[in-house]
Amino acid sequence: MPKRPRTQLRDLSVKRRFTKSSPGSVLIQAGSTVVLCTASISDNVPPWMEGKGKGWMTAEYSMLPHSTSPRKRRERSKVDGRTTEIQRLIGRSLRAVADLEALGERTLSVDCDVLQADGGTRTASITGAMIAAVDAINSIRKQLPDASRYPFRDSVAAVSVGVIDGKCVLDLDYELDFAAEVDMNVVMTGRGRFVEIQGTGEEHTFDDAQLAELIKLAKRGIRKLTTAQANSIGSAWPF
Amino acid sequence: MPKRPRTQLRDLSVKRRFTKSSPGSVLIQAGSTVVLCTASISDNVPPWMEGKGKGWMTAEYSMLPHSTSPRKRRERSKVDGRTTEIQRLIGRSLRAVADLEALGERTLSVDCDVLQADGGTRTASITGAMIAAVDAINSIRKQLPDASRYPFRDSVAAVSVGVIDGKCVLDLDYELDFAAEVDMNVVMTGRGRFVEIQGTGEEHTFDDAQLAELIKLAKRGIRKLTTAQANSIGSAWPF
Amino acid sequence: MPKRPRTQLRDLSVKRRFTKSSPGSVLIQAGSTVVLCTASISDNVPPWMEGKGKGWMTAEYSMLPHSTSPRKRRERSKVDGRTTEIQRLIGRSLRAVADLEALGERTLSVDCDVLQADGGTRTASITGAMIAAVDAINSIRKQLPDASRYPFRDSVAAVSVGVIDGKCVLDLDYELDFAAEVDMNVVMTGRGRFVEIQGTGEEHTFDDAQLAELIKLAKRGIRKLTTAQANSIGSAWPF
Amino acid sequence: MPKRPRTQLRDLSVKRRFTKSSPGSVLIQAGSTVVLCTASISDNVPPWMEGKGKGWMTAEYSMLPHSTSPRKRRERSKVDGRTTEIQRLIGRSLRAVADLEALGERTLSVDCDVLQADGGTRTASITGAMIAAVDAINSIRKQLPDASRYPFRDSVAAVSVGVIDGKCVLDLDYELDFAAEVDMNVVMTGRGRFVEIQGTGEEHTFDDAQLAELIKLAKRGIRKLTTAQANSIGSAWPF
Amino acid sequence: MPKRPRTQLRDLSVKRRFTKSSPGSVLIQAGSTVVLCTASISDNVPPWMEGKGKGWMTAEYSMLPHSTSPRKRRERSKVDGRTTEIQRLIGRSLRAVADLEALGERTLSVDCDVLQADGGTRTASITGAMIAAVDAINSIRKQLPDASRYPFRDSVAAVSVGVIDGKCVLDLDYELDFAAEVDMNVVMTGRGRFVEIQGTGEEHTFDDAQLAELIKLAKRGIRKLTTAQANSIGSAWPF
Amino acid sequence: MPKRPRTQLRDLSVKRRFTKSSPGSVLIQAGSTVVLCTASISDNVPPWMEGKGKGWMTAEYSMLPHSTSPRKRRERSKVDGRTTEIQRLIGRSLRAVADLEALGERTLSVDCDVLQADGGTRTASITGAMIAAVDAINSIRKQLPDASRYPFRDSVAAVSVGVIDGKCVLDLDYELDFAAEVDMNVVMTGRGRFVEIQGTGEEHTFDDAQLAELIKLAKRGIRKLTTAQANSIGSAWPF
Repeated sequence: MPKRPRTQLRDLSVKRRFTKSSPGSVLIQAGSTVVLCTASISDNVPPWMEGKGKGWMTAEYSMLPHSTSPRKRRERSKVDGRTTEIQRLIGRSLRAVADLEALGERTLSVDCDVLQADGGTRTASITGAMIAAVDAINSIRKQLPDASRYPFRDSVAAVSVGVIDGKCVLDLDYELDFAAEVDMNVVMTGRGRFVEIQGTGEEHTFDDAQLAELIKLAKRGIRKLTTAQANSIGSAWPF
Repeated sequence: MPKRPRTQLRDLSVKRRFTKSSPGSVLIQAGSTVVLCTASISDNVPPWMEGKGKGWMTAEYSMLPHSTSPRKRRERSKVDGRTTEIQRLIGRSLRAVADLEALGERTLSVDCDVLQADGGTRTASITGAMIAAVDAINSIRKQLPDASRYPFRDSVAAVSVGVIDGKCVLDLDYELDFAAEVDMNVVMTGRGRFVEIQGTGEEHTFDDAQLAELIKLAKRGIRKLTTAQANSIGSAWPF
Repeated sequence: MPKRPRTQLRDLSVKRRFTKSSPGSVLIQAGSTVVLCTASISDNVPPWMEGKGKGWMTAEYSMLPHSTSPRKRRERSKVDGRTTEIQRLIGRSLRAVADLEALGERTLSVDCDVLQADGGTRTASITGAMIAAVDAINSIRKQLPDASRYPFRDSVAAVSVGVIDGKCVLDLDYELDFAAEVDMNVVMTGRGRFVEIQGTGEEHTFDDAQLAELIKLAKRGIRKLTTAQANSIGSAWPF
Repeated sequence: MPKRPRTQLRDLSVKRRFTKSSPGSVLIQAGSTVVLCTASISDNVPPWMEGKGKGWMTAEYSMLPHSTSPRKRRERSKVDGRTTEIQRLIGRSLRAVADLEALGERTLSVDCDVLQADGGTRTASITGAMIAAVDAINSIRKQLPDASRYPFRDSVAAVSVGVIDGKCVLDLDYELDFAAEVDMNVVMTGRGRFVEIQGTGEEHTFDDAQLAELIKLAKRGIRKLTTAQANSIGSAWPF
Repeated sequence: MPKRPRTQLRDLSVKRRFTKSSPGSVLIQAGSTVVLCTASISDNVPPWMEGKGKGWMTAEYSMLPHSTSPRKRRERSKVDGRTTEIQRLIGRSLRAVADLEALGERTLSVDCDVLQADGGTRTASITGAMIAAVDAINSIRKQLPDASRYPFRDSVAAVSVGVIDGKCVLDLDYELDFAAEVDMNVVMTGRGRFVEIQGTGEEHTFDDAQLAELIKLAKRGIRKLTTAQANSIGSAWPF
Repeated sequence: MPKRPRTQLRDLSVKRRFTKSSPGSVLIQAGSTVVLCTASISDNVPPWMEGKGKGWMTAEYSMLPHSTSPRKRRERSKVDGRTTEIQRLIGRSLRAVADLEALGERTLSVDCDVLQADGGTRTASITGAMIAAVDAINSIRKQLPDASRYPFRDSVAAVSVGVIDGKCVLDLDYELDFAAEVDMNVVMTGRGRFVEIQGTGEEHTFDDAQLAELIKLAKRGIRKLTTAQANSIGSAWPF
């Protein structure tokens, strides 16, 4: 069980403009998990999207070798299944709230590089990616096809919940995640709608009551995260 | 909308012993989706599992090039993200109901090869894999460490549900899946507990009421599938 | 030595339209060897064939992991030499009897997926591929550039022969193949001309008399296979 | 048609000890085809051969980029099907005449690197590899398990034959090979037995009479090549 | 030409313990170049070093995709030549001043991940890697085989110099590097001895006088960098 | 220490037109190191060079497996770091003296294939590549855009120097290279200007006096090599 109340998020910190080489650059910390989310926009789309008058949003996820102890091998000759799953999830989450026509024929590329890993790296990545994406979009706002239409219709954030010793807990660090019978990642919009629910019981299963409580906890966490996102951007937050 | 009632499964057919080169070999058809699920057991475990007195269960998933029209490129130099996600899901689903100690230091390998794809290939794979796995286990039952302990504590089956034009539908074929605003795969045990919930709204989101109805429909489908699994095996069904 | 007379083929069965996702789909069984041969036609040719007013025919070959016991590793990161040799042979065999101009700028793609392997998978693949190819061609016959000209000038079929304990044997299953001092694959046309002869004595050699008898046996087998091909298609058999 | 009589070999030259870094090193020229065949012996066998008291023989084949005009791309990230076929053929040819027990638990590795390509590179490779292999074996002859038993029971050589404008021709250069309706590579032993026959009619077929004449021509060529091999080694030729 | 005097280093900043998941973690900034250098020690050596009673030191280098603008493709399927050259240089530089016996059979692994790239990433990596390495070594100092012997005999640092418009300049940023006729990286020890000199004139050449001045400038820069390294570690600096 | 005086080159031999399939083909021997350098010119440039009215020069380097004893594994699935470094060095060296506009939109491709390796393969490659390049250029001289402008402004050659037992030695063979405390490759033009200096002390360092003497020795060697290059080409030597 965590030391904090089990229905409360870990300490959260968001640092924008961490690097200057991309218009969006957010260092997000959730407890001891640290992710650098960077974002930029290019003036083209993948070949299969060309000529549709719409943009595209994509994400990559990677863990630095020393983000874990012991050091993790660098993914250089092939990308493992976990990495692929996570970066697809981040991309889908952004697109679920996107207005791709409002972006024009551009690609928003987000990179989530985990500098320090202590559980919840994929959810911190989504939450941080949203902020970096807004900064990147705002940097080209004047070039958008329609000034009145923002390339995101809503914001998105994510959190993990789990069942440990039969009890539901919000925002699992590595140790809690390892102990969890059930692990669920929930991605929701700022307005409280579901984007993704991924609940998994490796070697365990769960019932209706637990499902209901997990969802309730996740909603609570997402509300706090959405507020933190809006505060970090300030008046330029478009939602 | 499907021609059948939207709360009903597609036609299901299960053919055991389709090939003879593996102890488990099940041709499962759900509507026009056809998957060959084969299973065998080897007398060793992966290196990282050695010496623990436990077994392992793993799965691979693949689509034959002509399972779709037009023909799909064969995955020979690298495995794409979707394939990796699906085969990890199948493996996790089997392990969620497994008793790996009861298996001894053996590996159950399941292959799900899609011969014809019309939506729901991953859920049909899980449902068929469970049957092939039971056949494979039963073929070595006398060699198990403890005669009174079966390597599965429960069965597992899976089905997709989705939201189309705002309405919840059970068991999506390709056309329905393509039209769906929300797509959810639900994996449950024969006794009605959740193993996995993967709900995704690419470019859409969903709310609490929809979540509740999707879960309800999925449960209904899983009950039917569990009965079909038990019937196909007959008296050797261990649950 | 086989139980059947050594100059006779194994039992042969051909099932057309096994799957519906491709216009040609043939499940061919020779003894315990089972191959699914599927074929379709796309409206383009490889880049190096463009603009020549001719079509192309190509084949891929693969063994399902559980087609053998013990399970064979899936070829996902690289294709081994044997697979490459076999699929090149299948493609060459089809092209040897093809009239590529009669096909127009189209590509016939054939996939031979071995579901159960008991020797002679490459020759069964060629024999089955020919049938699937005819079904695929017939499905687009009205779109061909010249109604009076068929994209195949002749049919093709293949069989293995070998020397076991100094005696020549037709149609080797796995056990016979393993025991054979010499192994020869012969590909011939329906009209009795040679397309390929591949005779190999791994750790053995052979003399003129053996060569002559092997060729004689192969011819006999090919005649039977050609009849079976024609019968399976019926009146639409174009030769 | 060649300028030389069509039943005659191209000019042949064999230069031993071309390099000093391997015990066998033969520069073989057949017309304008130049192949460097090098051979050495290591004191171990592949893992799957260990503990059997037998040796192994293996070959690799490669074309230097500038062996052809225009320059051919170097095979560095994957080996193409043709290369794989050829190096498997060279290895099989050596093993067909080998006495692997007489070699002890050692591996003979032969490399055939084509410096200049003008047709018949695979057959020149086999013929040259045999000479390099004898030099390599002779360099460790005193360490062999049984002084009275040589690791080759016979020699091996290879030549191509083909049908051009309906006529059979021996030893095809690139231009002839390109023009050939049928192309056949024949590998035979010094004592006149067949090791491999690979006859192929890409877009053509052939009949019994042509088969007979091709075989006759090939035998004639092989006899000459065997004499040249023996002469190059001199008194140390073991057959 | 730079705005600072051309014989002066860019602003340098060193932040230790930037992440907590590895014992050495240094964020080094030279002008706008930012590199995260992390280091840890494992209790084994590569297979080819085992049983020699000596340790090993190795480094990896990578640029985050958004460290440059426009975004650079992530190296995931193969590592390009530049990356390989750089990480080999970093490893060699550390080993040149190492006392590998004093390390015992352990491996020091250093990762240099470029967060922001503005020229001189390889030299900043070496300078930062040295600091991270000292922190990592100090964290296991009590476990070293001989308390009186430190695993480094000297420190190492690196800087670039170049010729621009015929004039020698110290510490090139991206723009200067792009303009340079000659580019030289110099790696030296804290005591002023050379470890590596890599001078290159792509499309240009240089003469003796220029070589002499480049070396002089580099020495001057290295002295400053060595002082900065020592200051960052403080009293635990072992040299 | 070498048997020859330590300030003298190894025996050098240059054989032009070694193969006929490329316009430049030079077999260069420096002591027991033998490299085949071949060169040809194609009528296009890499995509990123198109439309600039300039040519490109590129090189590949490879060691034949039997160029060393014991045999070295062939680089077929990936190219190792050393190979990449060397071929980049050869290409840069040629381009440093090239006049790419004088070449027109053509690519000069040089291949350096090491047939026998005894130290100094990269420097022999550069020296030989220059000769092969001149032969290749001369073969198309009449097609160059401007008859009065040669695609090279100067020649280039390379040699290694090193410190052994504290003494500076010119032109290291394998044994000397292995014994060297410091190893330096120097690439210079025929007119005596530096192109590259790569000095490395793996596990050693060097001081100013040693640097000066190494440079002096290298210059002496390069002068001899330049003369040998000019002599091999004779009156067609353009410098």
